[in-house]
Amino acid sequence: MDTRAAVAYKAGAPLSIETVQLEGPKPFEVLVEIMATGVCHTDAFTLSGDDPEGLFPAILGHEGAGIVREVGKGVTSLKPGDHVIPLYTPECRECEYCLNPKTNLCQSIRTTQGAGVMPDGTSRFSINGEKVHHYMGTSTFSNFTVLPEISLAKIRQDAPFDKVCYIGCGVTTGVGAVINTAKAEPGCKAVVFGLGGIGLNVVQGLRLIGADQIVGVDLNPAKKDLAEKYGMTDFVNPKEVEGDLVPYLVDLTGGGADYSFECIGHPTTMRQALECCHKGWGESIIIGVAGAGQEISTRPFQLVTGRSWRGTAFGGARGRTDVPKIVDWYMDGKIDIDHMITHTMPLEEINTAFDLMHEGKSIRSVVTF
Amino acid sequence: MDTRAAVAYKAGAPLSIETVQLEGPKPFEVLVEIMATGVCHTDAFTLSGDDPEGLFPAILGHEGAGIVREVGKGVTSLKPGDHVIPLYTPECRECEYCLNPKTNLCQSIRTTQGAGVMPDGTSRFSINGEKVHHYMGTSTFSNFTVLPEISLAKIRQDAPFDKVCYIGCGVTTGVGAVINTAKAEPGCKAVVFGLGGIGLNVVQGLRLIGADQIVGVDLNPAKKDLAEKYGMTDFVNPKEVEGDLVPYLVDLTGGGADYSFECIGHPTTMRQALECCHKGWGESIIIGVAGAGQEISTRPFQLVTGRSWRGTAFGGARGRTDVPKIVDWYMDGKIDIDHMITHTMPLEEINTAFDLMHEGKSIRSVVTF
Repeated sequence: MDTRAAVAYKAGAPLSIETVQLEGPKPFEVLVEIMATGVCHTDAFTLSGDDPEGLFPAILGHEGAGIVREVGKGVTSLKPGDHVIPLYTPECRECEYCLNPKTNLCQSIRTTQGAGVMPDGTSRFSINGEKVHHYMGTSTFSNFTVLPEISLAKIRQDAPFDKVCYIGCGVTTGVGAVINTAKAEPGCKAVVFGLGGIGLNVVQGLRLIGADQIVGVDLNPAKKDLAEKYGMTDFVNPKEVEGDLVPYLVDLTGGGADYSFECIGHPTTMRQALECCHKGWGESIIIGVAGAGQEISTRPFQLVTGRSWRGTAFGGARGRTDVPKIVDWYMDGKIDIDHMITHTMPLEEINTAFDLMHEGKSIRSVVTF
Repeated sequence: MDTRAAVAYKAGAPLSIETVQLEGPKPFEVLVEIMATGVCHTDAFTLSGDDPEGLFPAILGHEGAGIVREVGKGVTSLKPGDHVIPLYTPECRECEYCLNPKTNLCQSIRTTQGAGVMPDGTSRFSINGEKVHHYMGTSTFSNFTVLPEISLAKIRQDAPFDKVCYIGCGVTTGVGAVINTAKAEPGCKAVVFGLGGIGLNVVQGLRLIGADQIVGVDLNPAKKDLAEKYGMTDFVNPKEVEGDLVPYLVDLTGGGADYSFECIGHPTTMRQALECCHKGWGESIIIGVAGAGQEISTRPFQLVTGRSWRGTAFGGARGRTDVPKIVDWYMDGKIDIDHMITHTMPLEEINTAFDLMHEGKSIRSVVTF
């Protein structure tokens, strides 16, 4: 079939809106009509050429929501008409990782997904017979896309696509880091580095679990008001702090953070996030993705005196199990998404979404089909 | 009163056996007759002058066992005749740290202990009226010493002093890192870097909790036999590994260690210990103490893909609560100490204990009074 899609032909170039050819689903695959998709920093990272694993040409996009239109042989958990959110971290429920309660990093299709193809080693996308790569196993910048059954979370039918698409990445990553990775407790004190699309979701995750103090750290004072709406109790602009940031944060939290979250992707803030943690028990969770080859450092004394350094991907969530719950939380008003989606636009204007992101004017832009 | 003690007059010099003057216990303090004391790398570190917090003159020693001879006013948990093990990490059961189940780092007397004095700010030791510093709150290289009540674990009367003194540091640090800090589970796979006095206790801690695979890493092949007696299943000498050590260890453990323990104190092995952990869930615990100013580094990707980096001090043990249990385990034959104590000598020969340590000829030397 033909479908409209935004194609990334090469690093650094704008996306091109094209008609591409899409093969139907093979066994254990599902054809999904994407109704809405967020545009995330990870898409921009790959498009920029900085992602060493980036492949071109490709159809980017990993934060979508849509409707099942056709299922391949052997698919048992989904049927046409089901509403779904694509998962860049699948959940096969059979591999060593899925069967270990300590991780969400299902490895069953990791190799082919990383190579921009379906599990059988081929792509479903092409233009005039030339192969176009899948991206993160999702390729939500296409009106229709094909995914493995294990890469789809079935959600309720009354959830608005143009909002819950954000649960496919940013919301789950931020809220999940708090509840799945940190397992933060009511009454805790936390510091969040970076109040963008991930950081705000960390903030509302902390409010959800009943944190006592939620400190937000950002160089941009314009982030303050929205972060406060999501539950931030203290705003710190490092440019306005006299002296070192770390002792300032330790003082502000009365001895250090029980949990800190790095949502920027910079080694310096990763170190600050660790070192502002409370002696004896503070845990720092890295969410941001650092540039290729960058390293983090600290004195081992920081760890020996009881701090721990951890990381999280997709908020430690098991997508098929956890994403539907987060959709419920949104529909029940326990978490907010609407105020983070600052711009909505048709596919034809998707390059504007990247411009708004780079200019710092959007929290999240959503493309609707 | 007068007591015999080994005095450290200055960095780098041998200890001097002297008669020193000891004041009796003030309120909430206890006079202990030390019956035996281990000689640990930490004593050697301070004596060498490399410890930036080292003070001279001082009476070193922190791994002792003895008998209560007199108690100061207000002491309620101990009486003359009680057998005790001194604790360089006290347990006041009242401070913010003691009341937080996530840490063992009681802070109630940290400042004065670090300054080489008792909680009232003065020393009980002197020579001809000149003050001599306490060390780690214990000073077990003296036949009699005074300690705060909260720095003494009461143990059973039938435990041999010249063996259970080792529980005052090395045994608890190693076994405790497994059971308190890592909380390692039966069936786990672990890698232990360094098979000295701490590493061997990590190995037997892992055997105690039912680990499936216990890999020991050491440059000295002479460590292999003893480590196997304590439960090591695989010995790796990095000098004999072709190529990089980390992928070798990942392969040997079938994907990486569930837990790794660094018992050397070197930034390079700390990094290797983290990176040989299993993707998704591996935890690395730093036990070794690195030199002043040294830093550890890794790529944040190691953490984002599910490894965690942690540390431990005194094996995460709360001394007054946990040390008596470990003494019971020794008396019940659940852990071994006897084969690690390779040398026993009188106080007059204590400098020989340091020589044996530096020459790599001893696992642990014990001085008896």
